[in-house]
Amino acid sequence: MSMPKNPVENLATLIRCASVTPAEGGALSALEAMLKPLGFGIERPIFSEEGTPDVENLYARLSGNGPHLMFAGHTDVVPVGDEAAWTHPPFAGAIHNGEIYGRGAVDMKGGIACFIAALARHVEAHGNPKGSVSLLITGDEEGPSINGTVKLLDWAASRGEKWDAAIVGEPTNPDALGDMIKIGRRGSLSGVVTVHGRQGHVAYPHLADNPVRGLMTLVDALINPDFDAGTKDFQPTNLEITSIDVGNPATNVIAARATASFNIRFNDTWDAESIQAEIHNRLDVASASERYRKGRKEPIEFDILWRDRPSHVFLTHDEKLIGTLSGSVEAVTGRRPALSTSGGTSDARFIKDYCPVVEFGLVGKTMHMVNERAALADLEMLTDIYRRFIEDWFAQG
Amino acid sequence: MSMPKNPVENLATLIRCASVTPAEGGALSALEAMLKPLGFGIERPIFSEEGTPDVENLYARLSGNGPHLMFAGHTDVVPVGDEAAWTHPPFAGAIHNGEIYGRGAVDMKGGIACFIAALARHVEAHGNPKGSVSLLITGDEEGPSINGTVKLLDWAASRGEKWDAAIVGEPTNPDALGDMIKIGRRGSLSGVVTVHGRQGHVAYPHLADNPVRGLMTLVDALINPDFDAGTKDFQPTNLEITSIDVGNPATNVIAARATASFNIRFNDTWDAESIQAEIHNRLDVASASERYRKGRKEPIEFDILWRDRPSHVFLTHDEKLIGTLSGSVEAVTGRRPALSTSGGTSDARFIKDYCPVVEFGLVGKTMHMVNERAALADLEMLTDIYRRFIEDWFAQG
Repeated sequence: MSMPKNPVENLATLIRCASVTPAEGGALSALEAMLKPLGFGIERPIFSEEGTPDVENLYARLSGNGPHLMFAGHTDVVPVGDEAAWTHPPFAGAIHNGEIYGRGAVDMKGGIACFIAALARHVEAHGNPKGSVSLLITGDEEGPSINGTVKLLDWAASRGEKWDAAIVGEPTNPDALGDMIKIGRRGSLSGVVTVHGRQGHVAYPHLADNPVRGLMTLVDALINPDFDAGTKDFQPTNLEITSIDVGNPATNVIAARATASFNIRFNDTWDAESIQAEIHNRLDVASASERYRKGRKEPIEFDILWRDRPSHVFLTHDEKLIGTLSGSVEAVTGRRPALSTSGGTSDARFIKDYCPVVEFGLVGKTMHMVNERAALADLEMLTDIYRRFIEDWFAQG
Repeated sequence: MSMPKNPVENLATLIRCASVTPAEGGALSALEAMLKPLGFGIERPIFSEEGTPDVENLYARLSGNGPHLMFAGHTDVVPVGDEAAWTHPPFAGAIHNGEIYGRGAVDMKGGIACFIAALARHVEAHGNPKGSVSLLITGDEEGPSINGTVKLLDWAASRGEKWDAAIVGEPTNPDALGDMIKIGRRGSLSGVVTVHGRQGHVAYPHLADNPVRGLMTLVDALINPDFDAGTKDFQPTNLEITSIDVGNPATNVIAARATASFNIRFNDTWDAESIQAEIHNRLDVASASERYRKGRKEPIEFDILWRDRPSHVFLTHDEKLIGTLSGSVEAVTGRRPALSTSGGTSDARFIKDYCPVVEFGLVGKTMHMVNERAALADLEMLTDIYRRFIEDWFAQG
């Protein structure tokens, strides 16, 4: 059996598996074939939940005497979008001008391909690491994230698995390899505000109560003022209105109801409970305002529905993990990576409940876009970064 | 042939015709049967237009030597709504506690029933009026108003018909018979504002441009400040947002587009052109505002689509018409009616291009509602009002 030392070959193999979420598409079997020659024990748990598709996952473990490192990621990818607009087919792994094209090339089959190549090179040069290495790979990161990492962590922990540190291989670099390691994430919370008015005819507005006027007032209070100015480690908290809806096609009718959907990304000034309380308070205060209501005195009648579970804000402080990874990045790229908490959520939000976790992978510029692609030079550098990290991290015991 | 002197019998006959717009439902044939004994010449033109239902209409003329009075109205009715909630069937004409129940009882089969009874009483007492009387009745007032009054007026005028005054029998009284004659109407205009933003991920708002922020700014400018404080003859101009829509189900996506639909009722401070210019100007000025846009400097990108044709504002000044009708109302009810321009549009907006027009009919409280109904006493009084008006108006030559 050949050792999977070449990240480009590993990645091409994975791209050729059309694993659009939640399909496995052969991607986990391809991983299994790469990991077997390295001596990994491999399990493929499938998780189910009513109303969601079954999802295949993979947990691979290479056991040794010493600390336990987890590498986490996903092989599922987002849909290809406008397939005709791709200059190379999205599931071919074509190489052109020093770049490899394909859906998932950077998000995040590329990260997985490099980590496996790094480990193969380490094993070939030095033998097995002085400890354990696990790969925790899901097929449900781009989907509802219900039958993926959350259940896989719980499944492994219930079998006694414990980890000392984790790296998630998501694309973290905005522009160039070495830009950024992510050491935490803002929290996320979504809700829907519904204003209840009274239907009527536009020519008799005093007999109706236009809910859009109330909604304008409440949305104003959700957006202004700013929640905070940011903290030492985090960007400012930000709320975006993702949808506002009435759905009234009649030009002469005042509607009975109007809704605003919003998502808030909050930093460590808040936790999920305090940010919810702040939003409730803003809406309660605003509901007495007459600004858009032309002298109507009674409070705006509204309710708020919180959607899904909140994602909690977190920040990783593990100096061995962060310092070793930063050093590896600087040694290979010559650049000191920013330690950032910016951007969206990732499965790191679940892993942080089990062990310190950071994220580092390829350049994210083309993720989710037509012509997603990774530079071959970046794949080689990322493999070298992961290889140095494995060597240095286990060397510290 | 019996004379249609009893307004309650006339109305019961009309209610029993289920003429939900645009269906004729036998209502125009029933009218024809009432008008024949009075000596009317009757025509039933049907108008068509691609994309709209064909509509039956009626034009009846009783010719005489002297001025020409038009009575205008419609026999089509709005749908019954929740039929199970009616205490008496909507197309039965049941009488209970001194009231007659049925869809169209007040809007506006009742007005037609009373006018025909008034004319029958006049003819029986004094012979034909000293002039001409026409009934211009459409089956397309509650629908799109395309194959109704507009075409019927044009059709009659092209055959040489000229009128000296018109009464529309719509329910004009808010609370009690005698409250209100309508002598004009505000204009009406509808539009849709679309804000074009840039789609993106909620965690990276600086890479997107949330169109809801721009829409908030533009809607603010549409609502505030007030357009005017009203005029001697008219209520203040008023704009209502009838719908705001994004239609984005994803909680983590910033949408590309947001729309606001609005209707404005404008008084004689404005005409359709100047109110459109005012709205364009407000939006242009507001598009530079950063209030909801967190420092984003480029103007809000938007467009505006004007819907349908505008309804123009109008005010009738004919002293003979207004004075004679006011006198008749006061003689019968003991109350001096308010001369108003409030409320919604009616087919009077089309008739005003041919002759002076006012509106007076029953009490509107139950129109378009479940258990629409008219007091028998009101039907008798309205018949007497119309009878006196016919007598006094023709007496002035």
